[in-house]
Amino acid sequence: MIAPKPKKSLNPSTLLAPLPVVLVSCRGLAGSEMDKPNLITLAWAGVINSDPPMVSVSIRKSRYSHQQIVDTREFVINLVNQPLLKATDYCGVKSGRETDKFADCELTPVTAEGLSIAPAVAQSVLSLSCQVRQIMELGSHDCFIAEIIAVQAATELFDKQGRLRLDKAGLVAFSHGHYYGLGEMLGFFGFSVASKKVLAKRMPKKVKGEE
Amino acid sequence: MIAPKPKKSLNPSTLLAPLPVVLVSCRGLAGSEMDKPNLITLAWAGVINSDPPMVSVSIRKSRYSHQQIVDTREFVINLVNQPLLKATDYCGVKSGRETDKFADCELTPVTAEGLSIAPAVAQSVLSLSCQVRQIMELGSHDCFIAEIIAVQAATELFDKQGRLRLDKAGLVAFSHGHYYGLGEMLGFFGFSVASKKVLAKRMPKKVKGEE
Repeated sequence: MIAPKPKKSLNPSTLLAPLPVVLVSCRGLAGSEMDKPNLITLAWAGVINSDPPMVSVSIRKSRYSHQQIVDTREFVINLVNQPLLKATDYCGVKSGRETDKFADCELTPVTAEGLSIAPAVAQSVLSLSCQVRQIMELGSHDCFIAEIIAVQAATELFDKQGRLRLDKAGLVAFSHGHYYGLGEMLGFFGFSVASKKVLAKRMPKKVKGEE
Repeated sequence: MIAPKPKKSLNPSTLLAPLPVVLVSCRGLAGSEMDKPNLITLAWAGVINSDPPMVSVSIRKSRYSHQQIVDTREFVINLVNQPLLKATDYCGVKSGRETDKFADCELTPVTAEGLSIAPAVAQSVLSLSCQVRQIMELGSHDCFIAEIIAVQAATELFDKQGRLRLDKAGLVAFSHGHYYGLGEMLGFFGFSVASKKVLAKRMPKKVKGEE
């Protein structure tokens, strides 16, 4: 039994953690002033529906990428692993209005499956092609409600049986202003009610450690 | 420079990772059949706005908690750390229609600051009191758009200077069906453009390691 925790009140704030950190790629309308590939880093991103697969990403109106995505209704979510982290942090600080973030970070825009305008980041291990379905104005941010229409994952992430091993990707989480690697695997969905046989197969170290 | 990754296409799915895993607490309307404290575990949760602070959580219509939250328009997001993980997994598998998850997991419902109906979980290190502003029907899930109106954090998480040290909480992330502890701190927001002085102060081990 876990002891109840005495609590202290804080001002209301966005203290949900950990969060994803993603590198979003986009591009302005063809022929417009904004017709160039751009990147923005976001932690205000999440899954909101399973079928159809949908995500939300929230962006301040002042950001260059905001107008590009409003105009084209397309963006790509590129997952961030440790080799991509420094570039990802940079893309969260700098503005596409002043610099070419793809060039600055030595990243390559490539065609994103299913989209006609927004590029994917060639160096990311996994990209989600997203089409905007709705934009909600919430205050500081606009929330883009989007459907995932295609997924592309690095071939290096598949095992011999052809299964996606996202645990091998070295993904990064965001928590209270800091980036963290993922640490120890603590369980799988349903482990609390799984049989000993299933636990021994799926969490061999844990089961041995408890004996 | 990072090499571009050859990619393989997958069917569209919710492969955004890592994600938060949260224990949401709620309660039905007073006097109704559903007037009992309940818990549901969600990974489809995220921040969607900074000012006012807002979150989204998505829940299937079939879940018991769904109707409770629709009726009361209140819920609490309780952050999950390692001691709370087994209970959290259990609450994602079981239904409040058939069992009392607070009792099963030896958890205690307590008053959540700012709310009149939904309780918080006394054993969680941090609770966000949420009021629903809008419900979006997306398909498999309904997405609850909510404002965070109060935050309560365990006193044990504050250092001598009174600063919240969420890094001491042992929070858990969810990725591709598995739970993970947070591992190494890899940087802070803005580290890619920070001065050596700031880096030496905020990431002493990293800076030393690079020398």
